[in-house]
Amino acid sequence: MPETCRQIRLARRPRGAPMAGDFELARVPVPTPGAGQVLTRTVYLSLDPYMRGRMNAEKSYAAPVPIGGVMEGGAVSVVEASKAEGLAVGDIVVGRTGWQDYAVSDAAGLRKVDPAAGPISTAVGVLGMPGMTAYTGLLTIGQPKAGETLVVAAASGAVGSAVGQIGKIKGCRVVGVAGRPEKCRYVADALGFDACIDHRAEDFEAQLAAACPKGIDIYFENVGGRVLEAVIPLLTFFSRMPVCGQIAHYNMTTLPDGPNRLPQLMRAVLSNRVRIQGFIVSDFADQQADFLRDMGQWVRDGRVKYREHRVKGLENAPATLIGLLKGENFGKVVVEVSDDPTQGR
Amino acid sequence: MPETCRQIRLARRPRGAPMAGDFELARVPVPTPGAGQVLTRTVYLSLDPYMRGRMNAEKSYAAPVPIGGVMEGGAVSVVEASKAEGLAVGDIVVGRTGWQDYAVSDAAGLRKVDPAAGPISTAVGVLGMPGMTAYTGLLTIGQPKAGETLVVAAASGAVGSAVGQIGKIKGCRVVGVAGRPEKCRYVADALGFDACIDHRAEDFEAQLAAACPKGIDIYFENVGGRVLEAVIPLLTFFSRMPVCGQIAHYNMTTLPDGPNRLPQLMRAVLSNRVRIQGFIVSDFADQQADFLRDMGQWVRDGRVKYREHRVKGLENAPATLIGLLKGENFGKVVVEVSDDPTQGR
Repeated sequence: MPETCRQIRLARRPRGAPMAGDFELARVPVPTPGAGQVLTRTVYLSLDPYMRGRMNAEKSYAAPVPIGGVMEGGAVSVVEASKAEGLAVGDIVVGRTGWQDYAVSDAAGLRKVDPAAGPISTAVGVLGMPGMTAYTGLLTIGQPKAGETLVVAAASGAVGSAVGQIGKIKGCRVVGVAGRPEKCRYVADALGFDACIDHRAEDFEAQLAAACPKGIDIYFENVGGRVLEAVIPLLTFFSRMPVCGQIAHYNMTTLPDGPNRLPQLMRAVLSNRVRIQGFIVSDFADQQADFLRDMGQWVRDGRVKYREHRVKGLENAPATLIGLLKGENFGKVVVEVSDDPTQGR
Repeated sequence: MPETCRQIRLARRPRGAPMAGDFELARVPVPTPGAGQVLTRTVYLSLDPYMRGRMNAEKSYAAPVPIGGVMEGGAVSVVEASKAEGLAVGDIVVGRTGWQDYAVSDAAGLRKVDPAAGPISTAVGVLGMPGMTAYTGLLTIGQPKAGETLVVAAASGAVGSAVGQIGKIKGCRVVGVAGRPEKCRYVADALGFDACIDHRAEDFEAQLAAACPKGIDIYFENVGGRVLEAVIPLLTFFSRMPVCGQIAHYNMTTLPDGPNRLPQLMRAVLSNRVRIQGFIVSDFADQQADFLRDMGQWVRDGRVKYREHRVKGLENAPATLIGLLKGENFGKVVVEVSDDPTQGR
């Protein structure tokens, strides 16, 4: 056990796209757990688009990270010391332990991960927050029915890839949208979506319309921007739009230039009786057992595949988040912070 | 019985605000009912904002009125000849019989009105389509809870006035928005809303925020434009937005200038988990008995008041609709087309 460990903190609030100087790496003593607490060593830190929102001062569904505070994030960790019942040294856990080598947490904030069920990194991926976001948002708000057309943006990412594959299981025609030709090929060929359109293509809008000849019954919205604007004219009667992200706008400092497309969206909502609903995964915490059962089975059966974008070293987390917000990752972003005790033994 | 009667038809599709020349008055023989049909004489023709949408060629929830077709509209009528079981000469009925002196309809498209229950014009007002739009949209989508803040636009109109009064019955703090000081006074003083803000005031946004110190839990959306834009920053966690109209945009020929406020709305939807849902009253047809029972009682008890804006003469319907789209009416617009057999006898 080292005496000190590293934390990555928010040094200042970004204006627009985050920069390296918005983060700072600090070295602190390894903390000691109190009664009911455990000390964990971070193995896999998850990086996710929502983290950009936490760097802002503005009100959202969660409080902002304070200046000088450790960056928030979910991670898979191993218990190194325990003063909590039910958690022993060596146990693998997942929780919101942040961007740091070691963390002290109340046991109630951690969930035990069974290493026999599969690679433990999936506890922050397809079997964790992103997978459950896909599962709950699509099934509860999207309510997919066989034969319907489902469009998913960021289709090669952690959430989008799961949304589309669950949509296929439910019998939908699934059209993905992604940001580069190789991502689109992966989505269509490896994940089995019916089509995947590159939103950087000049004729993206026409390609999307051609891929959705019967319109769009469900649009799983996590990006905003050009993709949302292309979707609006294709929405069908009684279509649904679960909203869990707006990555195209997270670095926005002023509203984009006109025209003002708000009336266009509202007209579509009215004419087609669209339902738009924002959510975050914790709104559906009571579905966790269902999620783990269903998704675990689908992953084991090979019906839901996943792809990780691995980066080595906690010190590389800031640059990796900066790249993630530009779409530079390809798959679920996982930072390897320390040795995975379930691997290579 | 005259030999001929008048119809008002769509002469051409308006570009922007409708003009007198977009309508034409035609004289046709009074039609003869076939088996299962009745001939009705129009007594009260309802004019409503949605009619502007029917004048466009674009896809919406209903087919457009064809060029040369009779303008669509609901009306209260008296049966003048019947070849249908269950409907007799002299019966008062309500149905979508259009802008004309006489109409032939299948009996299935008409609903009998009980003249003993109150003024028959209410069958196109507080006890008809507008009242049921308010009732179903607010209760089913808005789901008001005591202590919540409800904001209603077009608050002196047929739908808005009913929405706000039902909100008061359900224990909400109700803030109206209307378009002139005398409308605001009526809404606050006669209808009992907690406040009513004039959206033409220079500091409208600040006034609305001051009237909603705990934010907006339900925004009943029927106008769009400046009102919607002022509401967005005030939406609370898990707020609801039933959408049944966008009158500020019905005459729009191009999208308004920027900035583009679509990302602002979507950010609010995401951060606050807002639910936005478009609807039309016929989506909730199975609630009609509940509506007539509850609303009939509330009107009889004086808990829901209504105000009519009466205009005499079918020939004045086009100019009246043109004015309605500019907010020139004050209350539910009813055109007196022929003598009301329940009045003045």
